[in-house]
Amino acid sequence: MSALVIDNIGLLVSNDPELGQVRDAALVIEDGRVAAVERAGAQGDERLDAGGRCVIPGFVDSHTHLVFAGDRGDEFAARMAGAPYAAGGIRVTTDATRAATREELVALAAARRREALRAGITHLEIKSGYGLTVESEKRLCSVAAEFTGDVTFLGAHVVPAEYEGRADEYVEVVRGDMLAACAPHARWIDVFCEKGAFDEEQSRAVLEAGRSAGLGLRVHGNQLGPGPGVRLAVEMGAASVDHCTYLEDADVEALAASDTVATFLPATDFSTRQRYPDARRVIDAGATVAVATNCNPGSSYTTSMGFCLALAVRDMRMTAEEALTAATLGGARALRRDDVGHLAAGARADVAVLDAPSYSHLVYRPGVPLVAATLVAGRVEWRDPDFGFRSA
Amino acid sequence: MSALVIDNIGLLVSNDPELGQVRDAALVIEDGRVAAVERAGAQGDERLDAGGRCVIPGFVDSHTHLVFAGDRGDEFAARMAGAPYAAGGIRVTTDATRAATREELVALAAARRREALRAGITHLEIKSGYGLTVESEKRLCSVAAEFTGDVTFLGAHVVPAEYEGRADEYVEVVRGDMLAACAPHARWIDVFCEKGAFDEEQSRAVLEAGRSAGLGLRVHGNQLGPGPGVRLAVEMGAASVDHCTYLEDADVEALAASDTVATFLPATDFSTRQRYPDARRVIDAGATVAVATNCNPGSSYTTSMGFCLALAVRDMRMTAEEALTAATLGGARALRRDDVGHLAAGARADVAVLDAPSYSHLVYRPGVPLVAATLVAGRVEWRDPDFGFRSA
Repeated sequence: MSALVIDNIGLLVSNDPELGQVRDAALVIEDGRVAAVERAGAQGDERLDAGGRCVIPGFVDSHTHLVFAGDRGDEFAARMAGAPYAAGGIRVTTDATRAATREELVALAAARRREALRAGITHLEIKSGYGLTVESEKRLCSVAAEFTGDVTFLGAHVVPAEYEGRADEYVEVVRGDMLAACAPHARWIDVFCEKGAFDEEQSRAVLEAGRSAGLGLRVHGNQLGPGPGVRLAVEMGAASVDHCTYLEDADVEALAASDTVATFLPATDFSTRQRYPDARRVIDAGATVAVATNCNPGSSYTTSMGFCLALAVRDMRMTAEEALTAATLGGARALRRDDVGHLAAGARADVAVLDAPSYSHLVYRPGVPLVAATLVAGRVEWRDPDFGFRSA
Repeated sequence: MSALVIDNIGLLVSNDPELGQVRDAALVIEDGRVAAVERAGAQGDERLDAGGRCVIPGFVDSHTHLVFAGDRGDEFAARMAGAPYAAGGIRVTTDATRAATREELVALAAARRREALRAGITHLEIKSGYGLTVESEKRLCSVAAEFTGDVTFLGAHVVPAEYEGRADEYVEVVRGDMLAACAPHARWIDVFCEKGAFDEEQSRAVLEAGRSAGLGLRVHGNQLGPGPGVRLAVEMGAASVDHCTYLEDADVEALAASDTVATFLPATDFSTRQRYPDARRVIDAGATVAVATNCNPGSSYTTSMGFCLALAVRDMRMTAEEALTAATLGGARALRRDDVGHLAAGARADVAVLDAPSYSHLVYRPGVPLVAATLVAGRVEWRDPDFGFRSA
């Protein structure tokens, strides 16, 4: 059994309650898993010199919509310049996604997955939701399954144009044929529980059907205003409720008393000029939180978890350490996985080597790509061509 | 004379009033200069296929403090978490910078210059200001001169600890021995005209001495509150006044009636949780504006012009096009150069190939490194290893 050693780590963030943060460390990897954390200078068959850099667990991005076609850059720029949000926005994406071939969708998702790897994301969740027909949702789930084990069926993303004014009918399709077609490719079901999308009753119906089909539960909730999303998620034992921007006291109390993770998506608030969630209130109440990119073509087209962390610290008053934990261990908890998000013996060797002496640089250096190398299950999947030249 | 052709450009932004933006273009480069803009399919000895991507003039970063030593990442994170701004902050940098060898300073600046190239910055200004003694300022100017012709002598950055309470005495040193030592390495002189730094009279004295020594004038002004910086800059014919966050009507009128450029540094406002300048008011009044990174270890440690543009659009209400112009042509005007910042025949072939179909993606995709290739004077200085694989 050959060992890879990442040696000469200036600062190792393990996310392990015993180990904590370790200075001058070496990470020993065998068979794709962490074998041990040792002092710098450890022996191995293969050696990657971190040059005093900071090493963190790879980011776990627990909320993405990575599979879609079509470009909305100019629409976005127009909206920023004051044009009203085009209700047809998402339709541009569903039309293009339905029209794309499977090969095109795979290629587009692969390019985005590659970009996310370069941003240090070693594991991610991917939602469907830009098909909104039985066949196209099934195809999206099956494309997503080529990239992750954490596929989420999100037929209940919005009511598609074909069902305008007939949301209940669409919900029946989602719960019926669409779920049956998608469930074999998915681990999770999700619903957008928000005014203008699906109400509490419709959302509960979707989640119940998903649970019956063996899927775990996730909810988009409380993004645009107060609503029932968070409490429904907690009541039904969802793994995560995402956005959590508009919370009432009862929502915060419910989260704190549950193991439902509150997932913040700050790049969305940035790109939609929304207010940011009050992360301090949620954290201080004792809830578990995650930070994710929500990479999608409408409201948050970024794979940069570093950018999300900079916002979480600047605008949501999380500490740099809280933000890092939320984007690694928090993401893992939101996906109910214990193999990722930390670097203790036995964990999957998912690692990001930062081109910086400390993870604080993720916040200190906004917009700068700081990931010198990314390993997934012990394999180097990204290595910056300047690694070694750039300063730590 | 051999020609390089960047062919198959989906969208070329020329910044030339006649040419404007051109679809399906080819850029013909000879002897490091733009020879012509033609239709896609042009002939050349060497060919770079842009694959339908967007090509823009390289960014002109007209405000950086790139030469310094020492790390302040953890201090930054602590400040973000609520620790008061340490007055000693800049001292950490001046102490480390004075203690560093010339070779160390060159290596640190080279790594940052490399990072800026990867961010699409093809030309930049570099200020001294972390030495604050005759010898150390001279060394900083001479190190900066290894990287740019636009070196700015900023001995009047702050009053150093050794002169606490004796600002006038320090100003005499700046105007005297320090200026004499630095002027041979510099093109510009700059002063931080702000409460707590240098007042109007001291600032005028510094600028007058610089002008007598043959240097062009720049001013840091109106960053932390209203003050005389902008009007002094205009009165003295400075090329640029930088920050411009707190402006009174008279400041805006003065800018509009002058050829002094108002340079915004939004990443600084981000990293210090300051309010953003009212760019619309300045633009709508008819002043020329620039956007720059202000890359420095205290208040804005980024080389990402893309990040600055995202802020300029989201938080300063500039359009994507205005922001792009400000970071290219605006930067060139702030440095009074007509060879850079545009891509018409005769211009220096400073080019950024974006991994995107439109420059709107610089704003649409915050935090994502979008520069597939950077050329300076027609030479490829950065080429992303995934260029060709990533989608346009």
